Amino acid sequence: MDNKKIIELLQKMTLAEKIGQLSQTTGEHYVGKIDSEMVETGPDFPDHMLEGDTLYTMGSIIGVSSARITNLIQSKYLQKSRLKIPLLFMHDAIHGYRTIFPIPLGLSCTWDEGIVQQAAADTASELRAAGIHVNFSPMVDLVRDSRWGRVMESFGEDHLLSGNLGRAMIRGYQKGEDGEFAESGVAACLKHFAAYGAGIGGKDYNAVDMSWREFYAYYGKPYEIALQEKPKFVMSSFNTFNGVPVSASEQMMKEILRGTYQFDNIVISDWGAVAELQNHRVAGNGKEAAEMALKAGIDIEMVSTLYLEHYEQILEENPALIQDIDAAVLKILQLKNEMGLFENPFVNEARENEVLMNPRFLEHAKDIAKRTCVLLKNEQMLPISKEYKKIIIVGPFAGSNQLLGNWRCKGSFDDVVTLAEGMKRVDDSFDLQVYESLKDCPQAELEQSDYIVVAVGEHWELSGEGHSSVNIDLEASQQQLIREVKQTNKPYACICFSGRPLALQNIIDDIPALLWCWYPGTQAGSAIAELITGQDTPSGKLTMSFPRHSAQAPIYYNEYSTGRPANESSYSSRYQDCEIGPLFPFGHGLTYTGAQYSDFKISRHHLTAGEELTISFQVSNPSGYDYSEITILYIEDLVSKAVRPVREMKKYQVVGVPAHQTVNVQMTLALDDLQYLDTSLQQTVETGKFNIYINDLDHPVFTIEYR
Amino acid sequence: MDNKKIIELLQKMTLAEKIGQLSQTTGEHYVGKIDSEMVETGPDFPDHMLEGDTLYTMGSIIGVSSARITNLIQSKYLQKSRLKIPLLFMHDAIHGYRTIFPIPLGLSCTWDEGIVQQAAADTASELRAAGIHVNFSPMVDLVRDSRWGRVMESFGEDHLLSGNLGRAMIRGYQKGEDGEFAESGVAACLKHFAAYGAGIGGKDYNAVDMSWREFYAYYGKPYEIALQEKPKFVMSSFNTFNGVPVSASEQMMKEILRGTYQFDNIVISDWGAVAELQNHRVAGNGKEAAEMALKAGIDIEMVSTLYLEHYEQILEENPALIQDIDAAVLKILQLKNEMGLFENPFVNEARENEVLMNPRFLEHAKDIAKRTCVLLKNEQMLPISKEYKKIIIVGPFAGSNQLLGNWRCKGSFDDVVTLAEGMKRVDDSFDLQVYESLKDCPQAELEQSDYIVVAVGEHWELSGEGHSSVNIDLEASQQQLIREVKQTNKPYACICFSGRPLALQNIIDDIPALLWCWYPGTQAGSAIAELITGQDTPSGKLTMSFPRHSAQAPIYYNEYSTGRPANESSYSSRYQDCEIGPLFPFGHGLTYTGAQYSDFKISRHHLTAGEELTISFQVSNPSGYDYSEITILYIEDLVSKAVRPVREMKKYQVVGVPAHQTVNVQMTLALDDLQYLDTSLQQTVETGKFNIYINDLDHPVFTIEYR
Repeated sequence: MDNKKIIELLQKMTLAEKIGQLSQTTGEHYVGKIDSEMVETGPDFPDHMLEGDTLYTMGSIIGVSSARITNLIQSKYLQKSRLKIPLLFMHDAIHGYRTIFPIPLGLSCTWDEGIVQQAAADTASELRAAGIHVNFSPMVDLVRDSRWGRVMESFGEDHLLSGNLGRAMIRGYQKGEDGEFAESGVAACLKHFAAYGAGIGGKDYNAVDMSWREFYAYYGKPYEIALQEKPKFVMSSFNTFNGVPVSASEQMMKEILRGTYQFDNIVISDWGAVAELQNHRVAGNGKEAAEMALKAGIDIEMVSTLYLEHYEQILEENPALIQDIDAAVLKILQLKNEMGLFENPFVNEARENEVLMNPRFLEHAKDIAKRTCVLLKNEQMLPISKEYKKIIIVGPFAGSNQLLGNWRCKGSFDDVVTLAEGMKRVDDSFDLQVYESLKDCPQAELEQSDYIVVAVGEHWELSGEGHSSVNIDLEASQQQLIREVKQTNKPYACICFSGRPLALQNIIDDIPALLWCWYPGTQAGSAIAELITGQDTPSGKLTMSFPRHSAQAPIYYNEYSTGRPANESSYSSRYQDCEIGPLFPFGHGLTYTGAQYSDFKISRHHLTAGEELTISFQVSNPSGYDYSEITILYIEDLVSKAVRPVREMKKYQVVGVPAHQTVNVQMTLALDDLQYLDTSLQQTVETGKFNIYINDLDHPVFTIEYR
Repeated sequence: MDNKKIIELLQKMTLAEKIGQLSQTTGEHYVGKIDSEMVETGPDFPDHMLEGDTLYTMGSIIGVSSARITNLIQSKYLQKSRLKIPLLFMHDAIHGYRTIFPIPLGLSCTWDEGIVQQAAADTASELRAAGIHVNFSPMVDLVRDSRWGRVMESFGEDHLLSGNLGRAMIRGYQKGEDGEFAESGVAACLKHFAAYGAGIGGKDYNAVDMSWREFYAYYGKPYEIALQEKPKFVMSSFNTFNGVPVSASEQMMKEILRGTYQFDNIVISDWGAVAELQNHRVAGNGKEAAEMALKAGIDIEMVSTLYLEHYEQILEENPALIQDIDAAVLKILQLKNEMGLFENPFVNEARENEVLMNPRFLEHAKDIAKRTCVLLKNEQMLPISKEYKKIIIVGPFAGSNQLLGNWRCKGSFDDVVTLAEGMKRVDDSFDLQVYESLKDCPQAELEQSDYIVVAVGEHWELSGEGHSSVNIDLEASQQQLIREVKQTNKPYACICFSGRPLALQNIIDDIPALLWCWYPGTQAGSAIAELITGQDTPSGKLTMSFPRHSAQAPIYYNEYSTGRPANESSYSSRYQDCEIGPLFPFGHGLTYTGAQYSDFKISRHHLTAGEELTISFQVSNPSGYDYSEITILYIEDLVSKAVRPVREMKKYQVVGVPAHQTVNVQMTLALDDLQYLDTSLQQTVETGKFNIYINDLDHPVFTIEYR
């Protein structure tokens, strides 16, 4: 359909039909309740605002998927819809739809935009096959506090990396496998605008308060970067920002998002967030809530029905709002048109099964999962020596298929490759015994074993939305298990699953080798088995600092310098009962390669505006592994008018380093990389010296001067 | 000396002499090191900037006291000083000088301005007797995170209460016992301007970042209120505020402190804070640091010597700064004159011993300490039944005299009344046995005992400056002790000493009665004994919320409302592994009186601008105790344009309630009490409803309407 026809369609719409396009509801209203097999099980489920005609004006549906169900709903809808405007189906496929990839925090540990884009493109294919058009992903909320359960959905604590990976994910969703949005892509929804990750105390949904400098320089930055990829949607966040709920904030949603950041597509609220303006107590009733959200530029109300209930009165009082409404409806119609829904609102049901869990997705899922694991510690205990064939896998995750992580979407635990299965795939001569606890293991078995893999972690339900925790230690019983294994005097290593950094200070000394697996997804066991057996090397690096203690949060590498930098003194900026700094810092991650950085060179030691300088170094890989090295450059401004972080990541490259080879890495720095946001919110830099760090946060390789 | 002469004196001063007045050093430079008996023990201790003449231009001294020493220094100084301008002696007497009163956080639990003023006035007397003119107190930094060790120096989490008590403390210092500053007062130094209590993660000296609304409505408010009392000094804080170290911030120190808050007296840096501008990395060298501080309006540099080192060059480059310098010196000279130092720079050495630890101060200290203790829990286990005479006191604090708290100034542990001594003073027929642990107690002794008092807590060195902690649980061995005592089946109660709220979730169920004593000071044992034996009733109420878990910080009663208020759902704003809210909330505190609130009345249910309404109620005291009831009124704005706290304390009264009597309490509300700071930083209020709460944070007594 050409745009002229879309505009004509808009002109034909009644106000009620327009408001329907700005309202999103769930699938039950059309087909009744749906069970996990995606079969209708219940009666129709209309509520008072979703009866009769209203139901057939709605613009989009959340919470159902599968070709059959979406077709059924679409068909029922179109039969009764006056203007036959097809529905958009939207879903939360945060790290895969049926083929589950590692959780986003894991994905970020690859630092690899290609990988993130690939996972997103594969997800888009599955989503389209299942009748879904819009995906509520990526989340690029900056996170510094692992008490917050939603850190699992994030790309970590650095604003540039989060923005770049968010951008890659949007690219993957929207270009899809074929590079064409209309053919193979789904609309991405960037979320949650804004600063949802800064909730006080890491408590979900909590208030957020910060200076504008902090917002523009850090918390706002990932959205700013990701928006360059032009996502079709942005979701407004649940939190207040400096006293105003974002979903009612003209400043955030209009001035900043649409003005400063130049977003010109569709804004959708988070689940029920329009109605929650009453809980925030900025709206005294539903009509006020709807009016605030509409004025703030929330185009689509998710699930709550206040736009439907109150639009007549609101428009009567604010007739000018019709322009915003028309603009929003037009964008929605244009998106439906762009996806070809007017021509074919249905999806090929026969094709769905071919697409879901396609072997190429599974292969990607395994390769990607390998890249997300981070080897945090290794006292020459990994990989498992080739001589060791009798292996005990012990712990609550030893035989578990619960390795998908939260937001597993349509991922099935039955599809998950367990660790034992993965080991067998690597080498079916392994003699494997799997126990939940060491007590279950016969003594003779134990004595004859060569090696013990301890599989521990935090249950996937304990991270994710709504799952903030005050205690992020590894569970006491699991710490006990590790100590029991230590006492066997067998060689052993730990693998750990979690959706957040855990606090390991009390147990780390008893762990000779630790592979942090996050939640690896469908191919978990295969990926981990290939890594721990040495078929491949771990290569991921942390994107969130690991605190030593639950109460050491927030903790992050780019904290501001203070007047009393932490040292041995009581009168320095530290906790007296906790060692200084994180247990494992941002950027930490080991490999089996023994790779070395050397031959650091710099093209010049000073810089002026308009110039660049190049830093180069070599990464030599003496091992037999082809692998990807994550190289990172930080700067440290020695003096600036406003206080800056002690370290700022400015460049990173993921570099393929073939076995037995040395590669040269180059990174350039220019004025832009030295600048910072001053207290007047201007990009600036003073002349002076900067230290340059490569990977190692403690030892600079060069000092340069900006003149 | 009349002011004209002071101005003439200023005109005679060289620039070097003026800068000396703006520089503060320690006493060692004049008399060598001084031991705890205040005897000179070491050699002269000049450094390169404090040799020869410079030493005899200095304006003030920190870190020495006693009539003899201050006289000695003053005399040595004046002999060599060209213009014979006497030195000011400044000191940190945070909660008493020799007679130690309860720590400020304890004082705040009285909610009683009269008490705080009395403690300050007594302290002023001792300070003046010891030759001290300026006291670095009160601290009114708002605190919400008990990981921070300096919460002990604060007046808690409410901005109004902190401001009012700070004001009372300034009044006490500056008016002294006689009501005359020049006679019996010391100059108060309000600190630490500003927002030092908001350091990220409760880590001392850490960066602070917040919106201006948060600053003006909450963190800035206690200073604003206390400044109305016109303290002679304000101390600048160590922290950065939104990216600028406060001690280099013209915005904070000039625009806000001297402009908005209209402070027109002397600003002094915190210890070394001018030099620390280099650690903050906003100053590249000492000269830049000094220049920034001078430009920001830091009149006196504490301890570091950068003004002395660099003033010539700074003034050469910024000749206009001489006006600020002259103004600062004039204020310092005027203060010295106001205190009569030009006429008599010395203090009467013979009188010092009469003043220190004067019986009237000790009596005050006991009465005040009784008022600061908070009875957190009482399952009819306190007071100790009169029949019980054989009493075991057990625990690390059972026989301890370490009950002064941090910043004990010249308080001596030898002066402290221990709990056992206090009990004997109450009733010398008590048969008391004191043990550090239950193992030390012979079984027969235990069996014959009537009652056990368990004395636990956190060592005083673990709170205070530089003592941030990640673990604020009661020490595990002390929890164990409590469980052991429980198993004896003897009646028992716990008394607990600490400088901060501790996290008691894991042990509270094993404590039938808990008296929180903070650090009560010199008269600790007498005060506690009178309370636990029922000679008097506890009456304090908390001014800081008690978290359940170390990682539940920050926690405070006036958090902002959210879109998903905490409830049983996973999808609400809470920690999933921790019960909702604090273990003991702000305002909590029990008595032995069985007092009841009743007969709530309201003069009208609506209000317009210019009107007042009165809420009254009765407090009836059926007991034989005369006591002070802390009555508190909170409001809850049901709808407002910007998000407000769920509860806001607007009024409180400490009401004497004689035994067997009923008193009537009245509180008035007017427009001012309903207003809040909107996002444009204007005081405002919308028409609508407000719930009114009296003491009970959960159940409103009235709903009123602002029209």
